[in-house]
Amino acid sequence: MNLIDTFKQITGSANVLTEGDLSAWEMDWRKRVRGKALAVVRPATSAEVAAIVKACASAGASIVAQGGNTGLVVGSTPDASGQQVVLSLQRMNAIRQLDADNLTMTVEAGCILQTCQDAARNAGFLFPLSLAAEGSCTIGGNLATNAGGTQVVRYGNARDLCLGLEVVTAQGEIWEGLGGLRKDNTGYDLRNLFIGSEGTLGIITAATLKLYPTPATRLTAWAAVPSMEQAVTLLGLAHRHLGAGLTGFEIMGQFALSLVAKHFSQLRVPLYQNSPFCVLLENSDHESEGHAREQFERLLELALETGCVTDAVVAENLSQASQLWHIRESIPLAQAEEGPNIKHDVSIAVSRIPEFVTATHKLLEQAVPQVRIVNFGHLGDGNLHFNVQAPEGGDAKAFLRDHEDSVNTLVYDSVHRFGGSISAEHGVGSLKVDKLEQHKSPVALEMMRAVKRALDPLNTMNPGRVVRI
Amino acid sequence: MNLIDTFKQITGSANVLTEGDLSAWEMDWRKRVRGKALAVVRPATSAEVAAIVKACASAGASIVAQGGNTGLVVGSTPDASGQQVVLSLQRMNAIRQLDADNLTMTVEAGCILQTCQDAARNAGFLFPLSLAAEGSCTIGGNLATNAGGTQVVRYGNARDLCLGLEVVTAQGEIWEGLGGLRKDNTGYDLRNLFIGSEGTLGIITAATLKLYPTPATRLTAWAAVPSMEQAVTLLGLAHRHLGAGLTGFEIMGQFALSLVAKHFSQLRVPLYQNSPFCVLLENSDHESEGHAREQFERLLELALETGCVTDAVVAENLSQASQLWHIRESIPLAQAEEGPNIKHDVSIAVSRIPEFVTATHKLLEQAVPQVRIVNFGHLGDGNLHFNVQAPEGGDAKAFLRDHEDSVNTLVYDSVHRFGGSISAEHGVGSLKVDKLEQHKSPVALEMMRAVKRALDPLNTMNPGRVVRI
Repeated sequence: MNLIDTFKQITGSANVLTEGDLSAWEMDWRKRVRGKALAVVRPATSAEVAAIVKACASAGASIVAQGGNTGLVVGSTPDASGQQVVLSLQRMNAIRQLDADNLTMTVEAGCILQTCQDAARNAGFLFPLSLAAEGSCTIGGNLATNAGGTQVVRYGNARDLCLGLEVVTAQGEIWEGLGGLRKDNTGYDLRNLFIGSEGTLGIITAATLKLYPTPATRLTAWAAVPSMEQAVTLLGLAHRHLGAGLTGFEIMGQFALSLVAKHFSQLRVPLYQNSPFCVLLENSDHESEGHAREQFERLLELALETGCVTDAVVAENLSQASQLWHIRESIPLAQAEEGPNIKHDVSIAVSRIPEFVTATHKLLEQAVPQVRIVNFGHLGDGNLHFNVQAPEGGDAKAFLRDHEDSVNTLVYDSVHRFGGSISAEHGVGSLKVDKLEQHKSPVALEMMRAVKRALDPLNTMNPGRVVRI
Repeated sequence: MNLIDTFKQITGSANVLTEGDLSAWEMDWRKRVRGKALAVVRPATSAEVAAIVKACASAGASIVAQGGNTGLVVGSTPDASGQQVVLSLQRMNAIRQLDADNLTMTVEAGCILQTCQDAARNAGFLFPLSLAAEGSCTIGGNLATNAGGTQVVRYGNARDLCLGLEVVTAQGEIWEGLGGLRKDNTGYDLRNLFIGSEGTLGIITAATLKLYPTPATRLTAWAAVPSMEQAVTLLGLAHRHLGAGLTGFEIMGQFALSLVAKHFSQLRVPLYQNSPFCVLLENSDHESEGHAREQFERLLELALETGCVTDAVVAENLSQASQLWHIRESIPLAQAEEGPNIKHDVSIAVSRIPEFVTATHKLLEQAVPQVRIVNFGHLGDGNLHFNVQAPEGGDAKAFLRDHEDSVNTLVYDSVHRFGGSISAEHGVGSLKVDKLEQHKSPVALEMMRAVKRALDPLNTMNPGRVVRI
């Protein structure tokens, strides 16, 4: 029996797609690359996933696991060969269990992130992972790429929110690792090995996630800060005075905010005109809004006194708070309105960020006179989206064509000199697999290859992504 | 040149020990097993560690890495062959760097845990890992075994407190992974693979650790609770009302506390006489003692109203607080005074702990009439030290001889039925390597073996521990 017929036996014909418009599965989120799949298969259970993986292993066909297909590094779409199988987890979308006393929730990989958040909220809990694509991305994809987002400063990355996994291995075996245990020292940390491996070692089919009690209130403030150095000082003050209440700390450069003001004139962007940076802070409090406000006001008074903040507002209500977050989240859209640009997703030790930004900005200005930097990101985690826009009035397409490679090289070399990471939260996929070989330590790369060969000896799991063997 | 002479060239003769009393390195902490080393080598730098590993690889000699030698599962002492090399990290004990703005500290593997805590405190920060052996154990050992302790409910295990590692691989290469980055998605999570691998994949020589601002205050309370079910209810209330302030939640059974009262009569054990369980709670607050006390009182009032607490005291001052912690920490010593006993270190989903305790207690009583259970542990993490003591007045040595194996089997089988872990925080070492093969999923074991073969193909790194190949 050929592979397609085997798939049809496993999942039913309706869930094996080979004809018609498959672009939803074959084209990446940013529409940079269109591949061609042998088939898109949509299993409903982990047993079906295991059967598909076994069939592919026998046939020597490679498998690209896919969730919401919202990745930014071309890691979950097939290559152009027409020989890769896209295994979509979208139908495995059940919330299997919510255990209030254990503060855990077990969900299937295809569950939309927002659905996970809602299920937690309806039971009186918070599942804190939060990012722009939350209405479309799946928890399996979030774990496969170790997603970050806006709450990492308090709750960590996706890996920090996961206590257990169910995984189909490259051999088509099912590993049941869904314990929901907060302590388990019985051998190597396989869970963290699969998290962030982007489907190259096996397929995550379900996960047990941590829950937190819903905070009584979440307050948002917006502060004008005179420099990146002072933003780092403010971060330290916020850690000390808000403790674990500090759940968001986003930095936004003046030029980034000016693009929002220019392209979305209905949004009123506060305090940016006289300040090189603004910071959005979030304080989550388990007591009361009054207590949270008092804490925020004390912090901001102190920050004004020490000079690391020159002006600030605290949102009066939820609607004002969501407007402030909306401004932050509109930066990528405003950038796109301004024209094509070169995106980065880097991290540096927080203490070295001011120096990194100054040094890299200077190098870019030398390389491309009048270049514009759209600098914003999750400063609380040392993660900047240090994006590069063509000079004003210039030909943006020509800019990309002539400068994308050299700008990437310049930025990544600078990140490397500062001991940072060239992919903080987006992963490697196929987009950064070359760059990784240049910047990752050869010792680490060799260990990654050894692990890949050990767990996927046939090299059928998302081959060529993350690490090439 | 023979191996010993090579070592002498690498570290100097004074740091290669082959004669005299080597029991400090050859005997395990609980004095259960005495091995015989070919030599104890004490390098001072990671380059020296690398050279030793290369020399051993050439000679086919196996290496047992050792920190403070305080492990509880016989994982860091040599076997009886006289052919294994003990590589002691004790001389690599520098605090390399403390980065206040990045909230990180980089320390060498041989640094004593308490020294790490002190270095953090002196700079105004908290390094929260805390456990009974903290005056003797080393951070390298803590990471190699993924140590737990008393603050896990808030700060996680050792792995959650580590952002980067320097590791000497089984090939004698140095992997520089000390970035101090909070986000880094450039490939497989090698850091977490080494953490908890107990020296079987490579040797951790340094680590970058997370710091937290020192809390303004830490308050301790002691509550009498009428049942394990109500203790779980109290835990839920504490999570909701203290939020991230909840930094300790220890459960202690009545019999465990009665042993403390009996053998350490100078300690005044509160509230245990009329209550089957007591709970020790800790509330860390970044604001003030007054605020922390108010929070605690509100929680305890509510708990008294709902009936999950029948009586409670809040320590008035630090001295009272440390007395309460001292009682908790005296349980293992009181147990030892009472006579030899069978120790466990298990974890179960918090929601299933009451049922597990009832069911397992019943099975033990059927197997050994009048058996006594010393039940205590870190309920906030689902981690119990469910220890088993001989019947009162019985011959404890005979009890151990006749029942240790069957009691272990009974407890581990019960843990397995409840989906728990047979080693929550102590690790596997050589003590539990047989049991692990019985209780771990075969799929997981096979992946562990594949990883071991991939990273240590000569099987010279602490062979036979954790997983046998």
